[in-house]
Amino acid sequence: MSGSVRVVGLGPGPERWITPEARAVLDDATDLVGYRTYLARLEVREGQRVHDSDNGDELARARHALALASEGARVAVVSGGDPGVFAMAAAVLEALALRPVAERDLDVQVLPGVTAMLAAAARLGAPLGNDFCAINLSDNLKPWDVIARRLTLAAEADFVIALYNPASRARPEQVHRAFVLLRAVRAPETVVVFAKAIGRPDEEVFVTTLGEADPSLADMRTLLLIGASATRCVARPAGTPWVYTPRRIDGEVS
Amino acid sequence: MSGSVRVVGLGPGPERWITPEARAVLDDATDLVGYRTYLARLEVREGQRVHDSDNGDELARARHALALASEGARVAVVSGGDPGVFAMAAAVLEALALRPVAERDLDVQVLPGVTAMLAAAARLGAPLGNDFCAINLSDNLKPWDVIARRLTLAAEADFVIALYNPASRARPEQVHRAFVLLRAVRAPETVVVFAKAIGRPDEEVFVTTLGEADPSLADMRTLLLIGASATRCVARPAGTPWVYTPRRIDGEVS
Repeated sequence: MSGSVRVVGLGPGPERWITPEARAVLDDATDLVGYRTYLARLEVREGQRVHDSDNGDELARARHALALASEGARVAVVSGGDPGVFAMAAAVLEALALRPVAERDLDVQVLPGVTAMLAAAARLGAPLGNDFCAINLSDNLKPWDVIARRLTLAAEADFVIALYNPASRARPEQVHRAFVLLRAVRAPETVVVFAKAIGRPDEEVFVTTLGEADPSLADMRTLLLIGASATRCVARPAGTPWVYTPRRIDGEVS
Repeated sequence: MSGSVRVVGLGPGPERWITPEARAVLDDATDLVGYRTYLARLEVREGQRVHDSDNGDELARARHALALASEGARVAVVSGGDPGVFAMAAAVLEALALRPVAERDLDVQVLPGVTAMLAAAARLGAPLGNDFCAINLSDNLKPWDVIARRLTLAAEADFVIALYNPASRARPEQVHRAFVLLRAVRAPETVVVFAKAIGRPDEEVFVTTLGEADPSLADMRTLLLIGASATRCVARPAGTPWVYTPRRIDGEVS
């Protein structure tokens, strides 16, 4: 009875962004564990057991996955995007850490995937072409003060900033507060991108500026990108402009 | 004569991390353009033209790719990792921006991939489980002052910090200077990971602390991860410990 846990990501949406490694795990698993919305994207093979759950309660889901593996199951724990970025990998590690060392001898692996900011960046061109950071704007699990401090320091560092989970129905206010903080540091002409449901049939992208952006347009399926001072738009003959951040930053290069 | 440019990433190494989308582009391309080391990883199909070049001179490589597409070629511009993270996508956008708007009507797309920090994170568990940043430590294209300021602010923000290109034979000193800056802000017990050639046959991973780390062990194939204050190790019954950053940060959660 040697079971296993593989923590995989489906990427932001389409099959074409699921790595061959993750696809093989999904096909081979006896048990699929995850948030209902992600599992609904999968074609379940005959004989596979599906353990879906509501959003939240990731730790309970992770412990359940480890328990199934202890009983011999080949478990795929499924996230959207990359499992290591604001997703299930941390919960699985927390669940492992709660076990005595001797009971951590399970065959557990985390497999990398395509996270939302990389897909959004590719769609726009190369907004992450220079130094960047990723901040989860949800304050369900961390104090707003921590988020606020990180936003201000990231703005001062002139990082490109990717904001995950900017808003939900239960948390409409954080993204407004975030824009207040960002506008206190960054220029109004800073490039801002709203990238919604990238790679999915209802994908929407628009490019605006920090001064003009309406934060209330962000929802839980939106990834926000706040440009660095050097981030610029490149007009195309038609359609949304390209956005990129140059590799070169002028100054006295050492 | 309608050519195209697809900017793709090979991921950090093995075929199992190349997305099906990128694989299809590589198979379909008439022309492969890229840095010699990355192109050497590919099996070239009969009839495909290979345009390899030394590292550096990314802009010339990007302009060449656009010129080939203008002549009708289906060009794959090849990076390691994800093409949008310190790689060829920004160079292709720069090359596009240098053209008059009317001549930007080329069929250009950037396709997302698995970047090194995600593969390294997966290998370790979930070190990027909370807010993080990515800094390219090369000062070939930006002043060291910009890098130094970003390092210090990122350390103050308590981000997990991924350091790309920490050192090369021509630039052995930057990583030492970076550790001096990080040690001035972060505690000596901060978790530090050296992840070298992840996913490749000569992969090496070791976990240490900011106080004990020897920066001279980093080279151009190393990705460095500097933990946040909450990042912790989880012992396994044998081997390298797991590393993860909890999703929850204690404090008064709003």
